[in-house]
Amino acid sequence: MSKQEITLTPVSGGACCTPISDAALDPAAAAEGAGVFKALADPIRLRLLSMITSAGGEICVCDLTPQFAVSGPTISHHLKVLREAGLVDCERRGTWVYYWSVPQRLEWIATLITTPVPAPLS
Amino acid sequence: MSKQEITLTPVSGGACCTPISDAALDPAAAAEGAGVFKALADPIRLRLLSMITSAGGEICVCDLTPQFAVSGPTISHHLKVLREAGLVDCERRGTWVYYWSVPQRLEWIATLITTPVPAPLS
Repeated sequence: MSKQEITLTPVSGGACCTPISDAALDPAAAAEGAGVFKALADPIRLRLLSMITSAGGEICVCDLTPQFAVSGPTISHHLKVLREAGLVDCERRGTWVYYWSVPQRLEWIATLITTPVPAPLS
Repeated sequence: MSKQEITLTPVSGGACCTPISDAALDPAAAAEGAGVFKALADPIRLRLLSMITSAGGEICVCDLTPQFAVSGPTISHHLKVLREAGLVDCERRGTWVYYWSVPQRLEWIATLITTPVPAPLS
């Protein structure tokens, strides 16, 4: 396994964490959160995730790869990182693999960093 | 500048981006988002950010450093990465530096990955 790969157990439920505005994270939660953020910390992966999520259902890898100026194997690697972080899942059907996002995982990581924004000064 | 440092222009307003559930990110937005996620992709930085944010106002670096089993310069490096990503800001007063979080930046990055979670099957 290359050191860039991330192995995390996807959460099965909805939002489940305490936002950082409410309490300091314990080391275990920080390690899990940092692993998911590492998966998001690449422009190609972030664009792939946005394409998959905004597709509204599932999308064929054959529709993702042509959007990038990198090779198919590189796209496959990035998709694997997103999948291992629990952010997307996939299924092979015949020649192609179809991807969809995991809203619960996105909600979990968004909740972690959600913080009340003060009202603007009037 | 070490390659771990991230230089981003913090946003000044509130939530300003289109969530990835609504549309695919353009390359520029993906690059900016990935830079912020890179700053969050470390357990120590994530714990530091949660301590600063949950402090509710500002917190002295002298109250942060003792919480970690790493050196003061290492903590200072991580705080610099968070500051350069626009997630925290700071001010030196006498001997100590005081940190506070930037809610607008946290809101921006949380909005980016916020996606509607489907209702559970009944």
